[in-house]
Amino acid sequence: MTLQKALVVGTGLIGTSAALALREKDVAVYLSDVDPDAVRLARELGAGRRWAGEEVDLAVIAVPPHLVGERLAALQKQSAARAYTDVASVKADPIADAERLGCDLTSYVPGHPLAGRERSGPAAARVDLFSGRPWALCPGAATGTAALRLTRELVSLCGAKAVVVGADEHDSAVALVSHAPHVVASAVAARLASADEVTLALAGQGLRDVTRIAAGNPLLWRMILAGNADPVAAVLDRIAADLASAASALRSGDLDRVTDLLRRGADGQGRISA
Amino acid sequence: MTLQKALVVGTGLIGTSAALALREKDVAVYLSDVDPDAVRLARELGAGRRWAGEEVDLAVIAVPPHLVGERLAALQKQSAARAYTDVASVKADPIADAERLGCDLTSYVPGHPLAGRERSGPAAARVDLFSGRPWALCPGAATGTAALRLTRELVSLCGAKAVVVGADEHDSAVALVSHAPHVVASAVAARLASADEVTLALAGQGLRDVTRIAAGNPLLWRMILAGNADPVAAVLDRIAADLASAASALRSGDLDRVTDLLRRGADGQGRISA
Repeated sequence: MTLQKALVVGTGLIGTSAALALREKDVAVYLSDVDPDAVRLARELGAGRRWAGEEVDLAVIAVPPHLVGERLAALQKQSAARAYTDVASVKADPIADAERLGCDLTSYVPGHPLAGRERSGPAAARVDLFSGRPWALCPGAATGTAALRLTRELVSLCGAKAVVVGADEHDSAVALVSHAPHVVASAVAARLASADEVTLALAGQGLRDVTRIAAGNPLLWRMILAGNADPVAAVLDRIAADLASAASALRSGDLDRVTDLLRRGADGQGRISA
Repeated sequence: MTLQKALVVGTGLIGTSAALALREKDVAVYLSDVDPDAVRLARELGAGRRWAGEEVDLAVIAVPPHLVGERLAALQKQSAARAYTDVASVKADPIADAERLGCDLTSYVPGHPLAGRERSGPAAARVDLFSGRPWALCPGAATGTAALRLTRELVSLCGAKAVVVGADEHDSAVALVSHAPHVVASAVAARLASADEVTLALAGQGLRDVTRIAAGNPLLWRMILAGNADPVAAVLDRIAADLASAASALRSGDLDRVTDLLRRGADGQGRISA
């Protein structure tokens, strides 16, 4: 094992969950956060000890997407780690920030674990949050093999499955499988905000499933969507067009057009089931 | 107990599940279906015995929405039961059919259990399918108290919660909480039909939840949507408008507009959680 000491920068849900998973594998974990209460809580949960500048093998930067670049630059300036990765849910913008700030790209592996909960903060952390989940890694032309090996080890120790993908391809993919579906769930759930009690009494499991992720933190999702605006907008436009077309078809009695959408939906759903 | 003998007409998922629940409470259950194999399978599952014209307390008409009226008329003509209910997911059309066909409306209680599975047919039936679920009842001005009492007993024996609501109000409500969300789930899932393998590898639990119901039978849902076309179209138009507006706001950087939708979504979701 080459990953023996790790630093987690940002002890929120994702950072603390990764720290807990690493601790379970006997990796020494150091914790850092701008909020001292967040570090204290993560320590009390057994996620590691407070970071006092110790040099580590890998630093996991678990801060909001728009802060990744500057945090990476600062950590590299003090030679905090041999390698660095982040967990932001968009990749092109943080990479562009890192380049702009003159970061060393050989030791940086952009990453994104596809896992989360509706709750945030260290108290919501789970040692098995990443178990069986995909974890995207977006090495670029400059990425060094040592950094990639350490980051792959992190993914493996967290029980996740590494998916290597280009940054732009990643952002388009998560627009389709995560970001746009979040906005769609919000739009369905938004219709319930003014619904009467009898209507709500008829809500079943299907609606609860469709809208579950709409419970996510609006300000966190504002940041995520802002960082991936164009790919998300493109997917939303296509879904909006399909829904408007279905509405028009229902009104005109063109049920074949509606059935075609239902069939395509069943096909698409089948590709991610089982 | 006044419900001692029941007839289930249509031994699909819903009919057979109701039959199993009634059998568990020692109600005598008779089974009927145009498909002899469906009746045989339901009998083998312990759902009851084949109906040979015995008069019962309550007939549960579990056939597609557009067949409810004619089946009710035929059953009433042979005095099959003291009371009748149906389980169709729309209510205004079957009631209009029943009126048009001259059915006795005093013995008919339109009903709709809000429960289902992605699979259909008697083999998918579950004795606890309705447990804890809402079951809409839409008695009209003509509905007799004896019929309503028997139907309420059915709901109770199935472990469900009766929700009394007018037929038009029901149809608008289920457009919002069930039918439109199904089309939305299909539209999200349809985007996956042509996605590449790396994109699908990044799919997480959130997407699986949002799209789960899109696995439902397209031809069954075609019928359901056709029977509730205008209310569903109205909801779909509003959701499509919200998504197109969100796409436009993302492109122009108007993040407050996006955040407002996310907030309304979190509010709406909160009304059906817990």
